[in-house]
Amino acid sequence: MTAARLFALTPGEPAGIGPDLCLLLAREAQPHALIAIASLNLLAERARLLGLNIQLISVGPESWPSQAAPAGSLYVWNTPLAAPVEPGQLDTSNAHYVLETLTRAGQGCLDGHFAGMITAPVHKGVINEAGITFSGHTEFLAELTHTEQVVMMLATHGLRVALVTTHLPLKDVADAITAERISRVTRILDHDLRTKFAIAKPRILVCGLNPHAGEGGHLGREEIEIIEPALQQLRSEGINLIGPLPADTLFTPKHLEHCDAVLAMYHDQGLPVLKYKGFGAAVNITLGLPIIRTSVDHGTALDLAGSGNIDSGSLQVALQTAYAMAESQVASC
Amino acid sequence: MTAARLFALTPGEPAGIGPDLCLLLAREAQPHALIAIASLNLLAERARLLGLNIQLISVGPESWPSQAAPAGSLYVWNTPLAAPVEPGQLDTSNAHYVLETLTRAGQGCLDGHFAGMITAPVHKGVINEAGITFSGHTEFLAELTHTEQVVMMLATHGLRVALVTTHLPLKDVADAITAERISRVTRILDHDLRTKFAIAKPRILVCGLNPHAGEGGHLGREEIEIIEPALQQLRSEGINLIGPLPADTLFTPKHLEHCDAVLAMYHDQGLPVLKYKGFGAAVNITLGLPIIRTSVDHGTALDLAGSGNIDSGSLQVALQTAYAMAESQVASC
Repeated sequence: MTAARLFALTPGEPAGIGPDLCLLLAREAQPHALIAIASLNLLAERARLLGLNIQLISVGPESWPSQAAPAGSLYVWNTPLAAPVEPGQLDTSNAHYVLETLTRAGQGCLDGHFAGMITAPVHKGVINEAGITFSGHTEFLAELTHTEQVVMMLATHGLRVALVTTHLPLKDVADAITAERISRVTRILDHDLRTKFAIAKPRILVCGLNPHAGEGGHLGREEIEIIEPALQQLRSEGINLIGPLPADTLFTPKHLEHCDAVLAMYHDQGLPVLKYKGFGAAVNITLGLPIIRTSVDHGTALDLAGSGNIDSGSLQVALQTAYAMAESQVASC
Repeated sequence: MTAARLFALTPGEPAGIGPDLCLLLAREAQPHALIAIASLNLLAERARLLGLNIQLISVGPESWPSQAAPAGSLYVWNTPLAAPVEPGQLDTSNAHYVLETLTRAGQGCLDGHFAGMITAPVHKGVINEAGITFSGHTEFLAELTHTEQVVMMLATHGLRVALVTTHLPLKDVADAITAERISRVTRILDHDLRTKFAIAKPRILVCGLNPHAGEGGHLGREEIEIIEPALQQLRSEGINLIGPLPADTLFTPKHLEHCDAVLAMYHDQGLPVLKYKGFGAAVNITLGLPIIRTSVDHGTALDLAGSGNIDSGSLQVALQTAYAMAESQVASC
């Protein structure tokens, strides 16, 4: 039997549902050695609150586990809090703690200790209130790994949606759609579908920017002037692209049947249907990083922390996706 | 037994699948007297091509039928073509014919002959090529009925989505989102849900304009400066509005469960999920008109005309919706 692979799991905001989710899923055995990077005290206290009997096993760089933990136990790389946590109560004192867990996970991936990392939600607001500039996991990990361009992709059973632009005001979207950006994002998407998802020749459907994909120029000219030429260039590089297609009819069986991913031009064009289809079982994947990173698709749900009334479906999909990506990456090397 | 209500059905572009759809559904009896406004010759020829044995019964202003037609027959208000039709071949000669069928249907509704009209797809391009300015059924009927503001709403089982803006290039959307437009559209939506759908107190979910509904101003300020104040004013008028909510999480059971309609800010924010959910069984409804008008949610499918290989699901939902709206309108008078 080969030694188990190690994966890092960051519970994120300590006052949110992240710690709860990690404990809930530790009730069942994982196929790999999953290591929560968090405060042992926090997890012990949250387990007590939830009435869960989970054995927390301290591990770390001097003592990585050699096999997956049995059901009812969880490996923890203890990372101390700055202040005690009250579920649901944000505290700027613990902002550095949250970032330290992310750094340990990301650096551990870069150093080859971890095969990938899975993140539960952080709370951007409280980190910024602590005086730290922070716009999200994705940007933090891009900086840590010296990555210039990353791509946000959400996935659920039967559908993957990647975005050309992400968290921009709608009024700035059209100007941000440049041939250069489309090319960079599409190349990363194609590359990572090949290398991290073991898809030999990915088939990608591309949305237009405008309603009806511009309807031949009557409803906007970006398809004709920017998107089409960019796709032509990318096709000449061997990337299999269909589009630009109208977004309102693209998400139908006829089009999706033989497609590996949809490339949407902006956030609310692609994600409503993905989350409608996959709610409770969708995963957020950062492409373009030199490491594997998946995440839940929901927020900290502060009001539910400690309640036990939560659904760990998205975290389970995030874990399964990270495991599968690590397999594919090895296979494609 | 009361006399049957009359409804007008326009098959639209004669070279498309509209005539085929009308003939296919005539195989079964309708609950009301449904009158196709089209060329008798066209329908007879298309029936022959499809191998359908449908009895075409000529009716008109001098001889409206007094009851629904039996299965296997279709009432036709004969409206002559200008030139013979080859399925799949557009011909500018028949542009005036198409508009004449719409005028007869719309004016018949205004005059009280018809309880509502149901439209199959027209081809905008060929009408414009014929030298006639035409931007769609909706605008045509708005002009015919002297209506200043109409609202486009798509519906399928369990979901209705109305739009604040419709066929605009994406770059122009943010500027078009004004308090005045939101107010006009929302009032029409609320009014028509009450009077044409018999919903006593409609509950409407409103999308934000920006991703995450602006995330407290970090991703755009239209929610704070325009949308929220507009919704507050509308609430003070007694309209039940929830939002602005992030579009990517709004379309989930938790939010949709107790909602009568979603108001999206623009085309590709609201329609991909509606068409994903309802494909093949969605209906396009024009609100704000003094008449009832529903439509299929698909195009002319020129390549399928005469083939018989089509799905009449959307037209059936359009008919059922028009019938139900007419019932509700009578009930709410």
